[in-house]
Amino acid sequence: MVGDHNEEWMRFALSLAQSAQGQTSPNPMVGAVAVKEGRLIGFGAHLRAGTPHAEVHALDMAGEQAKGCTLYVTLEPCNHYGRTPPCTKKIIDSGVKRVVVGCLDPDHRVAGQGLIRLREAGVEIIEGVLNTDCLQLNEAYFHHRKTGLPFVTLKTAVTLDGKTATVSGDSRWITGDAARLEVHRLRHTHDAVLVGSGTVLADRPQLTTRLPGGGVNPIRVVIDSRLQLSLDTPVADVSEVPTWVFCTEEADEKREQALIERGLRVFRTGGSPRVDLHKVFQRLGQEEIMSVLTECGGELNATLLQGGHVNQVKVFLAPKLLGGKESETALEGENPLKMADAMRLTDVEVAHFGEDICITGKPDHGAKGVNC
Amino acid sequence: MVGDHNEEWMRFALSLAQSAQGQTSPNPMVGAVAVKEGRLIGFGAHLRAGTPHAEVHALDMAGEQAKGCTLYVTLEPCNHYGRTPPCTKKIIDSGVKRVVVGCLDPDHRVAGQGLIRLREAGVEIIEGVLNTDCLQLNEAYFHHRKTGLPFVTLKTAVTLDGKTATVSGDSRWITGDAARLEVHRLRHTHDAVLVGSGTVLADRPQLTTRLPGGGVNPIRVVIDSRLQLSLDTPVADVSEVPTWVFCTEEADEKREQALIERGLRVFRTGGSPRVDLHKVFQRLGQEEIMSVLTECGGELNATLLQGGHVNQVKVFLAPKLLGGKESETALEGENPLKMADAMRLTDVEVAHFGEDICITGKPDHGAKGVNC
Repeated sequence: MVGDHNEEWMRFALSLAQSAQGQTSPNPMVGAVAVKEGRLIGFGAHLRAGTPHAEVHALDMAGEQAKGCTLYVTLEPCNHYGRTPPCTKKIIDSGVKRVVVGCLDPDHRVAGQGLIRLREAGVEIIEGVLNTDCLQLNEAYFHHRKTGLPFVTLKTAVTLDGKTATVSGDSRWITGDAARLEVHRLRHTHDAVLVGSGTVLADRPQLTTRLPGGGVNPIRVVIDSRLQLSLDTPVADVSEVPTWVFCTEEADEKREQALIERGLRVFRTGGSPRVDLHKVFQRLGQEEIMSVLTECGGELNATLLQGGHVNQVKVFLAPKLLGGKESETALEGENPLKMADAMRLTDVEVAHFGEDICITGKPDHGAKGVNC
Repeated sequence: MVGDHNEEWMRFALSLAQSAQGQTSPNPMVGAVAVKEGRLIGFGAHLRAGTPHAEVHALDMAGEQAKGCTLYVTLEPCNHYGRTPPCTKKIIDSGVKRVVVGCLDPDHRVAGQGLIRLREAGVEIIEGVLNTDCLQLNEAYFHHRKTGLPFVTLKTAVTLDGKTATVSGDSRWITGDAARLEVHRLRHTHDAVLVGSGTVLADRPQLTTRLPGGGVNPIRVVIDSRLQLSLDTPVADVSEVPTWVFCTEEADEKREQALIERGLRVFRTGGSPRVDLHKVFQRLGQEEIMSVLTECGGELNATLLQGGHVNQVKVFLAPKLLGGKESETALEGENPLKMADAMRLTDVEVAHFGEDICITGKPDHGAKGVNC
């Protein structure tokens, strides 16, 4: 009985889905596996928006054999004409006997309709196999579908004493090669990378994905309340990667015009002195940016956290000590009075990259923590 | 042939030695195991200065059977009359055939003389089994024997953004129960705990060992350049634990007298404005303090590290973020200009205590690092 192996096949489908990490946005990652009489007869993954869905690849590979098979798919099949025809039609036309689904698609155009259509056509349905893993895989996608906002990961790299830069702004390098490679992998898997104009000014970063085998560049988002961005800084070169700049309503129009002429997009959100970050993320969500990686300094980090904009924190820790009373730290902003006001992280995970450590967690907005 | 099992028996001897961690000072931890024809016939550990050495316990347990046995001992047996008779005599008198030794004792009264004496008496010697582990076990003891100085471990507890206290000085609590228990275990295994008068003033700590089953209290050392210590603070109560205060030559004599009357010891080391830390550690070494755990704030931590006084660093990291531009950080002091001037740690180890992490490493004084 194939049913006993549901989790195994679903785990394989998950691994296929994950193989396309960073290259499916704004679509979710999806994997599909077709099995008949205990034999694998086809498999596939969604590789890029506008190209066939995972189910289609798997059923095409199965060909004639698809009739009577069991199809494992990490996400509910779609039931609408989008950039491609509905997968439910393909499944029914192929004569699939049973569909095993990891999780439902919250997209309002799917939202259970896919399974209803399949049941109507007499296809047997098993729901929720490896549900948590399937939801986790597309955490950003689900978050965006539910809230309209991108899933925001605050990334920082610190010495053990929490320093991100010297008093003169030097920050190269805190972590080693392996951790910096992981940051490029994070850029590859995020739709946008967000920085403040201070970081652009101090570090002149490119914010591109530089992995050994290439990679997808995130859109670069610069929070630049007064449009201080210089035209000769790397992120102002949009020949290969777009840059979007968010400024206040009062920012200088001539500067805005100069940036637009260079090919940058400029968004005005909020009055002086500061850009309204909630409006920034709303706008990014509307632009189908599902995930944002922030690579900011301590002041903007504090504003992001205090504003409740952060869904996940990633702190890369290097085993070194910088010292310096006025060195910059990863989180600055207003001074809390009580240690009990610190923001706890939940779902904490620890990973090692060379001699550095990466701690990932989610801000616990429910816990006591007045400051953040 | 027993020889094949040398490492196994030595590992057992090491575990016996370690069972007395924190209670043998100023003596080293030592374990001994007596084996004859593949059978364990006796074992022991040194439990407290002035009481029998490990070899004596093991051979007493073996009794008549000791004749012709192999004795495993983590440290070279002593060959002098100290607080107890020489172990070499006991070994020879017992008719031990072979002694397997983990490492030599650098104590000038031993220093290879123990093995020479045994060889002269016809005892077969095997040296250096699990040598690195045996040296590591008594790292502080060996350091003290070689340099005359205590082995200094700088301990701090920080949030992920490196904060140790709020701007108002609140620091309770950064880490959770498991990490705080580990700090009490560290106090148990150190001869002295060192703090600055600022920490005493701000936190009113007891600095005692409070483990569920008791424990050995470290001597409390307070760096208090101007003798500002208040008589009503917990460390000024020396009814159960000694407190030693180091001040400058210029500190007020009446205050010194008041502390002495309360039972504290006061040492004057160095002129204004600051106590000479090198003289502090020299004096502690002379007083047979082998190991010091420092629990200081960011300024004294910087002075300790910059002065090259620190042999090991332990940073307990809590998965939380405090923020605050003026919050205190684990390492302050002068501002370095280059990130490359950060002090690297070597021999880095990561341990988990509940949801907190402890990173242990040794300052790499050889690496580039002008600041520290």
